[in-house]
Amino acid sequence: MEFDPASLRYDDQGLIPAIAQDAASGEVLMMAWMNAEAVARTLETGRVTYWSRSRQAFWIKGESSGHVQTLVEMRVDCDRDCLLLQVRQEGPACHTNRRTCFYTAIRDGAEVELMAPMV
Amino acid sequence: MEFDPASLRYDDQGLIPAIAQDAASGEVLMMAWMNAEAVARTLETGRVTYWSRSRQAFWIKGESSGHVQTLVEMRVDCDRDCLLLQVRQEGPACHTNRRTCFYTAIRDGAEVELMAPMV
Repeated sequence: MEFDPASLRYDDQGLIPAIAQDAASGEVLMMAWMNAEAVARTLETGRVTYWSRSRQAFWIKGESSGHVQTLVEMRVDCDRDCLLLQVRQEGPACHTNRRTCFYTAIRDGAEVELMAPMV
Repeated sequence: MEFDPASLRYDDQGLIPAIAQDAASGEVLMMAWMNAEAVARTLETGRVTYWSRSRQAFWIKGESSGHVQTLVEMRVDCDRDCLLLQVRQEGPACHTNRRTCFYTAIRDGAEVELMAPMV
């Protein structure tokens, strides 16, 4: 069955959440948003491209930082309203310079920082 | 630092996306939504509890199906607007009876089903 980005279910802003996962380690790196055009560009170029809600612009991950995400495989969930991106991540995925954005755990009711920024 | 569910950033519906990941295998199982009370209940009970947008009600995962999610660890992302739940998943996570909701891959422009329902 041919895939059409328009067949996904977008929210009222025309966006769908996309989870980026390290294809090799399985680590969940970040979650960001795509519109239909970002989905199409990501598949076409193999460079993961989000839609920045704050800047209201396409966001080719790593374009300014060099921390590129290369698409290994895109997956669609059962409701067609969420994407899973298996990626090769160059350097840190997080703007804080950590490998993953999910570096804070809740343990015994307290926040615990799991990792330091990469140097 | 003490964790307060009210310190998270919720959308205009009062919801935050929560990604469930198999704590042992690293497989991403599903994405659903929580409000502040669902976050608190999940931490308090160790039973993953979402907010069902379609039913507008709390959704204790597995309560009717038996496919319970037990929380291993909750993580918060850098922007405090997304949660990662590391869980122990009983049986399939997906309502289609598949282990994960992300069972469809996009390969060479076509949709490919990666797994069959569990029996």
